[in-house]
Amino acid sequence: MTGLLDKTIAAIRPLSVAAMAQAKARQDMLTKPQGSLGRLEALSVQLAGIQGKPIPQIKHKAVIVMAGDHGVVAERVGNWPQDVTAQMVYNFLRGGAGINVLARHVGSRVVVVDMGVAATLSSQDHLLNRKIATGTRNIATGPAMTIEQATRAIETGIEVLESEIPKGLDIVGTGDMGIGNTTPSSAICAVMTGRPVREVTGRGTGIDDDLLRHKVAVIERALAVNRPDPARPLEVLAKVGGFEIVGLAGVMLAGAAHRIPMVIDGFISGAAALVAAGLAPGVKDFLIAGHVSAEGGHRILLEHLGLRPLLDMEMRLGEGTGAALGIFLAEAAARILGEMATFAEAGVSEKETAGT
Amino acid sequence: MTGLLDKTIAAIRPLSVAAMAQAKARQDMLTKPQGSLGRLEALSVQLAGIQGKPIPQIKHKAVIVMAGDHGVVAERVGNWPQDVTAQMVYNFLRGGAGINVLARHVGSRVVVVDMGVAATLSSQDHLLNRKIATGTRNIATGPAMTIEQATRAIETGIEVLESEIPKGLDIVGTGDMGIGNTTPSSAICAVMTGRPVREVTGRGTGIDDDLLRHKVAVIERALAVNRPDPARPLEVLAKVGGFEIVGLAGVMLAGAAHRIPMVIDGFISGAAALVAAGLAPGVKDFLIAGHVSAEGGHRILLEHLGLRPLLDMEMRLGEGTGAALGIFLAEAAARILGEMATFAEAGVSEKETAGT
Repeated sequence: MTGLLDKTIAAIRPLSVAAMAQAKARQDMLTKPQGSLGRLEALSVQLAGIQGKPIPQIKHKAVIVMAGDHGVVAERVGNWPQDVTAQMVYNFLRGGAGINVLARHVGSRVVVVDMGVAATLSSQDHLLNRKIATGTRNIATGPAMTIEQATRAIETGIEVLESEIPKGLDIVGTGDMGIGNTTPSSAICAVMTGRPVREVTGRGTGIDDDLLRHKVAVIERALAVNRPDPARPLEVLAKVGGFEIVGLAGVMLAGAAHRIPMVIDGFISGAAALVAAGLAPGVKDFLIAGHVSAEGGHRILLEHLGLRPLLDMEMRLGEGTGAALGIFLAEAAARILGEMATFAEAGVSEKETAGT
Repeated sequence: MTGLLDKTIAAIRPLSVAAMAQAKARQDMLTKPQGSLGRLEALSVQLAGIQGKPIPQIKHKAVIVMAGDHGVVAERVGNWPQDVTAQMVYNFLRGGAGINVLARHVGSRVVVVDMGVAATLSSQDHLLNRKIATGTRNIATGPAMTIEQATRAIETGIEVLESEIPKGLDIVGTGDMGIGNTTPSSAICAVMTGRPVREVTGRGTGIDDDLLRHKVAVIERALAVNRPDPARPLEVLAKVGGFEIVGLAGVMLAGAAHRIPMVIDGFISGAAALVAAGLAPGVKDFLIAGHVSAEGGHRILLEHLGLRPLLDMEMRLGEGTGAALGIFLAEAAARILGEMATFAEAGVSEKETAGT
């Protein structure tokens, strides 16, 4: 383990209790019955605690989408060709994917990172080429990557997050692209939560019952072959992870260290969050669950992290699409706190102890 | 009953089956696994059916906030002074209320309508003065208003909606302001759904157990005194309604007649929707439930209408705040359908019958 990862983990501090208390006090002065904006109010207080500001600011936004390929596709665990990972990266760069549309809708930039796509991607302005390798090895027969590669990938995630800060970065959404990546995510989820593989394995992009049974068997084999130890999260990533998943864990650690709220997307981002929280439990306070995905294991994973999703739209696309919607709600929460008039400012009477 | 209401009801047509089929076909060509954007996909299809366009457009948005006062506050059913209705109307006009912040956040204008505030409001540029009376009468002792006033109020709602169309109106959110208005809303909900008063009566702005028991008793008295018949929805409104609630029912009927999607807010908008659907069942297809509020009766009411809420943020402010968030999601759904690249456009391979 080199210096950057350790330094980042060491830099993670608790939420600012003072900022949260000030935010809560202000919420209760705004022209509405106390608590009547429900989870938006709680979210504004969390944002205050993360940013260390009584009135959090959400202006500069980025969805960081990390892409990687997975050797386990050799086991035929899904029904999309591996080429789609690279094709979708180009789709991201041209602005035609779901995440592009939703990021535009919430006023967020999209940062596309090649962490380990199996193809050599042509050089493009908006692509960050951070390829660790051309896809992982097949986890059903051995480790996905070496521990050195895992360390490099997680530190790459940290560096990607840090390189976005000078451009302005008030909130981050996490996203993923990688054909086959629900398989390593389920493996990570089983290891880190201690739940049986079948409980945390879903249909991904839409496989049938036979393929689902096969996928569960492949993941069980991957765990039997690799024997990952949940007490060693980086090793879990090396054994059964994926480059984009490791990178996202790095993004989350760096976001927490730099006090930037992070809206995590679906099951793959959640698997990254499990490992990030395994490395540094304090990271959880900096995470906002944008949504709960239709992939069953996601709910289990969020409960394990103690995160309550904002949305339940039955989405299962990944790419950061659920995170983008969550960014909208986080900005709404911050704006409520910053822009609503107080009772005193508006000359509105406050609640009485009895009726008129 | 005069001509405008009948004419409006007669103008309501079913959703466009052709536009919905085209929208669905396009969703399935977009660069994502089919169905992977979940409820956003279904919402885009509904919007297509409402607007009668294969690719719905959401550009011009308005939240229509109707305000009125309620004679039943004489029974001390709540814990805020009646003056707050007028004070909050001024807060809306100055842009300091929750709905102003969330409407700005989603790029929507706010249309504030005095349907029956108890105070004489000073003339203001942005206020639509459509006052039917200075508050309703006390429903615990007799009808809230005459049937003529109810007809005038519902037709006023129709006119308000129609007067917004020339400014551009692709989607409408409904909102309310009226101290005490959860009481008539619970009364309407009990009548129209056939459920016991205690099941559809909640804590409104936050009353305690004693006051809640009292509120239930007052509503039961209102129903015993007025004996509203659910088969005569306009009479239900006249007997136990409120001017802002009647106005919102008119807005919904007109929106359906003009094929404009309407995102309904919480319990008060829901009560208006119950009556609008009682007058014209076809209106339901044009409604989108922005959220489910913390007011318990809201969930019952939405189930009765066959509407599934988009959000569950434990909000209970009213004003159209939940509708504003729903407008964001509706626009997201429309943009996904209109802006995402198809597989052919993006050169992305489609799903295989077997894995790679």
